[in-house]
Amino acid sequence: MRTFVTGAAGFIGSNLADYLLKMGIEVVGYDNFSTGHHEFLRGAIEHKNFSLVKGDTLDIDNLTNSMKGCDFIFHLAANADVRFGTEHPRKDLEQNTIATFNVLEAMRLNGIQRIAFSSTGSIYGESNIIPTPENAPFPIQTSLYGASKLACEGLLQAYAEGFDFQCYIFRFVSILGKRYSHGHVFDFYKSLNNNSENLKVLGNGHQRKSYLNIQDCLDAIFLAIEKAKEKINIFNLGTDETCEVNDSIRWITESLNLNPGLIYSGGDRGWIGDNPLIFLDCNKIRSLGWKPKFSIQESILQTLNFLRKNKWLLENSK
Amino acid sequence: MRTFVTGAAGFIGSNLADYLLKMGIEVVGYDNFSTGHHEFLRGAIEHKNFSLVKGDTLDIDNLTNSMKGCDFIFHLAANADVRFGTEHPRKDLEQNTIATFNVLEAMRLNGIQRIAFSSTGSIYGESNIIPTPENAPFPIQTSLYGASKLACEGLLQAYAEGFDFQCYIFRFVSILGKRYSHGHVFDFYKSLNNNSENLKVLGNGHQRKSYLNIQDCLDAIFLAIEKAKEKINIFNLGTDETCEVNDSIRWITESLNLNPGLIYSGGDRGWIGDNPLIFLDCNKIRSLGWKPKFSIQESILQTLNFLRKNKWLLENSK
Repeated sequence: MRTFVTGAAGFIGSNLADYLLKMGIEVVGYDNFSTGHHEFLRGAIEHKNFSLVKGDTLDIDNLTNSMKGCDFIFHLAANADVRFGTEHPRKDLEQNTIATFNVLEAMRLNGIQRIAFSSTGSIYGESNIIPTPENAPFPIQTSLYGASKLACEGLLQAYAEGFDFQCYIFRFVSILGKRYSHGHVFDFYKSLNNNSENLKVLGNGHQRKSYLNIQDCLDAIFLAIEKAKEKINIFNLGTDETCEVNDSIRWITESLNLNPGLIYSGGDRGWIGDNPLIFLDCNKIRSLGWKPKFSIQESILQTLNFLRKNKWLLENSK
Repeated sequence: MRTFVTGAAGFIGSNLADYLLKMGIEVVGYDNFSTGHHEFLRGAIEHKNFSLVKGDTLDIDNLTNSMKGCDFIFHLAANADVRFGTEHPRKDLEQNTIATFNVLEAMRLNGIQRIAFSSTGSIYGESNIIPTPENAPFPIQTSLYGASKLACEGLLQAYAEGFDFQCYIFRFVSILGKRYSHGHVFDFYKSLNNNSENLKVLGNGHQRKSYLNIQDCLDAIFLAIEKAKEKINIFNLGTDETCEVNDSIRWITESLNLNPGLIYSGGDRGWIGDNPLIFLDCNKIRSLGWKPKFSIQESILQTLNFLRKNKWLLENSK
């Protein structure tokens, strides 16, 4: 099997590439390096089964050419900047919706029909049903990011129906672990690194969140691809735990031996469009025999340790 | 109130424009005339409260300028060619998803925050719950058209949340009546007009469909806008009746005094992505006091009579 991974130099993409190579699977990595890092591919790049193409998912010709000869697409490239969606609404449209359309068209032109896609638990908006199952009531979108991922899912499904594709859609909670370089652990660590006396916290700190470890995430993806055989396969991926932002702060500061003053911005959410809780019902993937190996606390500390060893990421952050 | 109607020269748009003008409301009509007809605006164009802009929804500058000074947007312009989506997948993306994004951005740039949008019952894919309510389980898309309307709905909702818009989303069944110029009654009448001996029928004729009259549709839209005051208001619009394609054929041929041989293409659906039945639970709009005045049979015959008086449409069809 020859796989094609968009966003291969990103957090999830680079871990996925390593995972595939370890399984003896060929990988063509595709990334525009707008937020990805060559450093994340340091191991992969030396592997005989890995090749790298610098390219943008908005460049459909490059995408189509680069995909030639592949059998399975992992489409991970995306604008993952959930929080600042309202500052540049076009970004989600272009980098998520249109980019995904391009990936599907490039597949169609190459006769490739199998794709796995990283969607998000944000797609459920503010569901009344918590934990939220895959067949929750028709959701109302609360962010441009969620709306763009919804659009992508719809496209994948329509291609599955219209062009006989097989698709795997994974609705993630936030992912933690090695090469994590975007999100609250990053922000807190960076902030404490600059000023260990005080820590600004968006919201009131009581926002509950659910996080999944990257290794657990990849295990789940491969189990699903191995066992689920429908035309359209949709899986929530998360843990059965939640933590409060305040828990996370405690774990981080204790691990760093710091005791900063906490300055809350207030309110029950961090920003407009932030969900107070994304907590997914993961019985569907669990029924295939998967369960997460790492607790949220372990994942947060693992992430923190990765960042402590990779301080260059703090300077590089965009 | 000054309203802006995209797709103003189309079937629904031109009827809407007439309706608004009759209510004493100013209308700026916007259409690129790719499928719209000047003829449909013959009445409106003479009205002092109507002005017309020729423009494309993909031209965001023209859209933004034309919208200036309006308070409420009716966004109806769309690729309504549901059936041939797989022949040109980019059309739904551009004319529906990207065009809707442009409309929302043009509104934001102009400080306009209220919008009504024509979505579709196709968005429910092949729901297991029939009649299908607005909060049916998270649907799976079965057509590029449905997927693009899903994307549009998500965008409207995200703008409502992120930019304090108020939106009205109407999920239509197929609409019939005056100026109808696209769909099965049109196809059958055109075909019988060319050859009254035989009629080709996609599928087995047993596909059940639900249709709503344009007048009932517009009454429902205005009632919803008057009475529903949420930030995001979603309504199914349909009748509580269904008919089979075969019923429709019988009504049409009897009215035309014809007795053609029927040649079925076979199968339980007309084309890939065609839903065997779109039948919507309309209790939500009914609870506001609306009910349809026209039966499906009356609407089909009204449509047929319109087409008989407007044969120029048969030649003009694209």
